[in-house]
Amino acid sequence: MSARYEEAYRGQQVLITGGLGFLGSNLAHRLVALGAEVTIVDSLIPSHGGNLHNVKGIEDQVRINISDVRDPHAMGFLVQGQRYLFNLAGQVSHIDSMLDPMTDLEINCRAQLSILEACRRHNPGVRIVFAGTRQQYGRPIYLPVDEKHLIQPVDVNGINKMAGEWYHLLYGRIYGLAATSLRLTNTYGPRMLLKHNRQGFVPWFVRLALLGEEISIFGDGTQRRDMNYVDDVIEAFLEVAISPQTHGELYNLGHDEIVSLNHFTRALITAAGSGSFRLVPFPPDAKRIDIGDYYGSFDKLRDAIGWTPRVDLAEGLARTVAYYREHLAAYLDESPGGGEPTRGSR
Amino acid sequence: MSARYEEAYRGQQVLITGGLGFLGSNLAHRLVALGAEVTIVDSLIPSHGGNLHNVKGIEDQVRINISDVRDPHAMGFLVQGQRYLFNLAGQVSHIDSMLDPMTDLEINCRAQLSILEACRRHNPGVRIVFAGTRQQYGRPIYLPVDEKHLIQPVDVNGINKMAGEWYHLLYGRIYGLAATSLRLTNTYGPRMLLKHNRQGFVPWFVRLALLGEEISIFGDGTQRRDMNYVDDVIEAFLEVAISPQTHGELYNLGHDEIVSLNHFTRALITAAGSGSFRLVPFPPDAKRIDIGDYYGSFDKLRDAIGWTPRVDLAEGLARTVAYYREHLAAYLDESPGGGEPTRGSR
Repeated sequence: MSARYEEAYRGQQVLITGGLGFLGSNLAHRLVALGAEVTIVDSLIPSHGGNLHNVKGIEDQVRINISDVRDPHAMGFLVQGQRYLFNLAGQVSHIDSMLDPMTDLEINCRAQLSILEACRRHNPGVRIVFAGTRQQYGRPIYLPVDEKHLIQPVDVNGINKMAGEWYHLLYGRIYGLAATSLRLTNTYGPRMLLKHNRQGFVPWFVRLALLGEEISIFGDGTQRRDMNYVDDVIEAFLEVAISPQTHGELYNLGHDEIVSLNHFTRALITAAGSGSFRLVPFPPDAKRIDIGDYYGSFDKLRDAIGWTPRVDLAEGLARTVAYYREHLAAYLDESPGGGEPTRGSR
Repeated sequence: MSARYEEAYRGQQVLITGGLGFLGSNLAHRLVALGAEVTIVDSLIPSHGGNLHNVKGIEDQVRINISDVRDPHAMGFLVQGQRYLFNLAGQVSHIDSMLDPMTDLEINCRAQLSILEACRRHNPGVRIVFAGTRQQYGRPIYLPVDEKHLIQPVDVNGINKMAGEWYHLLYGRIYGLAATSLRLTNTYGPRMLLKHNRQGFVPWFVRLALLGEEISIFGDGTQRRDMNYVDDVIEAFLEVAISPQTHGELYNLGHDEIVSLNHFTRALITAAGSGSFRLVPFPPDAKRIDIGDYYGSFDKLRDAIGWTPRVDLAEGLARTVAYYREHLAAYLDESPGGGEPTRGSR
């Protein structure tokens, strides 16, 4: 795919919620390189993915506004004058959503409504791209999962993310806001949170491999997943935001390379040159919310804007490991009370 | 259908949220007749359907607790010791959900999570039946709409009701709560709110007919609907609550008698012996959220428990008119700022 957006962002005002997190900071790096005027909103909630190290090298070229998307007044001000809003802030831990469903609701539902109300009132012309999640589908009924698949979330996070996405599309239909949702699958790469195991198996496995520790895979390890390297996801966001035909639509991301957890883990250990793994029985709590195999069809997005992932797993893991070999110390801090030692198949 | 539940509720503790409203109060009347120990929770929010007149005749046989489902402490106490929870409280106005999306979210999402947390902690054995809505489906892709139909809500209310329903089913799967959702279609009968036009076309048309006024139908009046008389809906709730095979499931209600708005309105005017109607063009705001034809399949519920509606439209409207001819004054109070003079096709 040629980067049609290469010149589109030069000198443009861009707001990124969750901009110190994994996706947001990678997007900020790319947008700075493209000449955009980037404002980052992040609340640096300790257990979330925000990390000032993530903007190392561009800290003087972005405006960093520490505030919470739950703050309607701050958001009402910050959306003004923006041409693009990449709305990436969220509570993304499925485990935390069950332990503290109200906080998940405040961030993934209430704050989303509040952001959309702010846009509607103060900047109805802003282009919005929202980060949805494959978690919305729950346990697949058929594979690959396309956008017509029934929605059956298996945790509070999946329900609330669903509501958050629908608010975006609804405000598009009713108030004319130009909003698009991308439903992300497992995404990996530099600047992931590694400090606890509550944001899915990928970052936790990366951490264990880098530290030369043993990875526990729940079940027999044959569960299949599609995995996107973060740069491919950033491409999708940048391309979608400048493509009017995507307004009001939702799209799966995904990858043609479908891998088992065993395969992923072996590839990771190979890339890292350290770590090991073993299979362990599913703990009952994890089994209850396990979704089995998941991989999605991204035909709809490919047909709309020509997007396809370009980085395969071996290459993506090599880049990921290279980043963390240089910066690992900035990602290891445990948050207080941070989780069990191993993590399953999500 | 024989009422298998005839003896099941005698002496049982039953909690009804929204118990002074349309559905809740009709359910309370029936449960009192069946010998249940009924506690009603209602906050009597002026623009909502709660009305003390709705429990006239049983006020000494029920416990009326004026409180809001958004109050976690009150709910944490009130769920204790209950055998059944009919969770009917909700913000049900689609129009209000767009004007004040945060209040809709607080009632239809946050309060639902709070009720479920209360049940999980204080009364995990309670049987819960939740009132969902056909609004969750949005504009039908095919007819009749069954439970596998894609969910595409067209207003904030539909999104939040969807989340509220899913919390129930999720808490069933994860924590073992015995919860079922019934997705109601247009329901009519005694004890509906008639004081404003923001709870759908049915009560407003009933009011206008009873007062001998002219009803405006948006569009050409050929939009089709299925309509349930309230007693049939109450049957479904009572039957589902004592049927363990329904736990964790969701079901459409519906009716085999599919009617156009024109047909419904003529039947209403005939039953009332007063009123008139005319067709008017759709106002743009109403057109944007109009869903066209809707009627649902209730095969899943019929297969599960044998439920079918027994009251046809002519009979249901006759009973409805008879009730309001006697009690109309108690239902006419306008709430402050209550809506436009006419109402469309929802």
